[in-house]
Order: sequence, then structure tokens, then C-alpha cells
Amino acid sequence: MTSSHYTIWYNVIVDQLTDVLTALSHPTRRAIIGRLANGPARFLDIAEPFDTALNAVTKHLRLLERAGLIERRKRGREVIISFRPEPLREVAGWVRAYERFWNERLDRFEQFFENRTITTKKPHTIRRRRNE
Amino acid sequence: MTSSHYTIWYNVIVDQLTDVLTALSHPTRRAIIGRLANGPARFLDIAEPFDTALNAVTKHLRLLERAGLIERRKRGREVIISFRPEPLREVAGWVRAYERFWNERLDRFEQFFENRTITTKKPHTIRRRRNE
Repeated sequence: MTSSHYTIWYNVIVDQLTDVLTALSHPTRRAIIGRLANGPARFLDIAEPFDTALNAVTKHLRLLERAGLIERRKRGREVIISFRPEPLREVAGWVRAYERFWNERLDRFEQFFENRTITTKKPHTIRRRRNE
Repeated sequence: MTSSHYTIWYNVIVDQLTDVLTALSHPTRRAIIGRLANGPARFLDIAEPFDTALNAVTKHLRLLERAGLIERRKRGREVIISFRPEPLREVAGWVRAYERFWNERLDRFEQFFENRTITTKKPHTIRRRRNE
């Protein structure tokens, strides 16, 4: 087996997807996204509900910003932070590529019960067969 | 503003989603998933294409296993590692909750060009309007 076999999937580069998944991998950062999805907010409004140092919140925001998931704007003296959804598309795309794997497993699971119900002739099985 | 405002989104618990996103946040681990999606493999087959110490690969596999994304089975003397897709469903579900945000942005973007092309009457605009 040569390493050329792996060139397609051996794609070890530090990319935006890595930054985005890293940003999403902490529950506090997902909670901040949840908050900002309701609308832009000031730094202190974001930090308030968390029982962590402001310093820690600043670090979380920095990771979210690096991933392109938030942006900061100055409004007078205040900094307004808002949610940018676009980088999540890449995550959705990556996960979607594996969707067939769990669908296949679900299909096998359903088929197992389908076969069982056909032999026992439960009413909902008859309904399903009529629609086919 | 009281912290009770935030009880819904202030859900900072270390959960499976955190484990899964942490596991996905490294390109090597995503590459390992890509490899195992093609079929189960032995440890050395997985480690071979990576220019890292076997020790590092072991650590990556441990994180994937903790997230429930892989499982190990003994076959004689060998350990066979296979892909478990189910935990990715939770990631898909989390991202899907934000899908409307990027769709809304895309809609606004498309509407902008739609309005532009209607005034300049490009051929593809006419085709689109016929299909409506």
C-alpha cells in the first residue's frame, strides 16, 4: 500500500473549517452564537450570564471572530458584536457528505421492523403497503 | 437585565456535542473519518499516511472514540477500527437550526441581483420568470 492511495482524503491543512469547528467545540461559544442569533449585542451583555472572567469571554470572542462567525463594529463608544452565519454552511456541507451513512443505518433498522410487522400484520403496516 | 433572560441559551454543559465537535476540529481526525467511511481498517493502515508519531495517531483515535465516532473490535490478534456515523446527526441538527440565517442572507443577495436583472432584461431572467 503506497501513500498515494491516500492523496484524496489525506488533506491535512489548517483551513477555515478547522477554525469554525474549533470555535463551535466549546459550549460557551455555542451559547454566545445562540445569543447573537437573536440580534447584535454589546460585549458586557454577552459576558453577563457567564460565570467566567471577562478575560475568558474575550478569548472566546476572539476564536469566534477568527472563524468568521462574529463581527465587531464601533457605534460611538460602544462595540457592537453581531453574528455572521456564513461559515456554518461549510460545516453543514461537511456533515452532509456523511448523511447517507446514518440514513443507511436507519434504513436497515426500519427494514428490520418492517419485516417484523409484515409477519405480525399490524394495521400500520397495511396502511404503509397501500401507499406504495 | 437579569440572568434569567438567558436561561434558554445559557446551557453551558459538557455534552456529547462538545466531544463530537472537538473530535472534528482537527484535520487529521476528519481525514481519519474520511478513510474509515470507506470501510473498517487496522490501526497501522490508518496511521500510515500521516507524517506523525504513532503516539499522536493513538491520541486522535482516543478523541474520536470518546465522541462515539469510531469503535474498535478485536479480530484475532488485530484491532479493527470502524466508523460510527450516528454522532454526526447531532452536529447536523445543531447546524440546521441556523440554516435560515444564511438562507435569509442568500435570499437578500439573490433578490438584489433579481431586481438588477429585471431592469436590464438578461435572457436568464426571462427564463426564470416563465417558470414562475
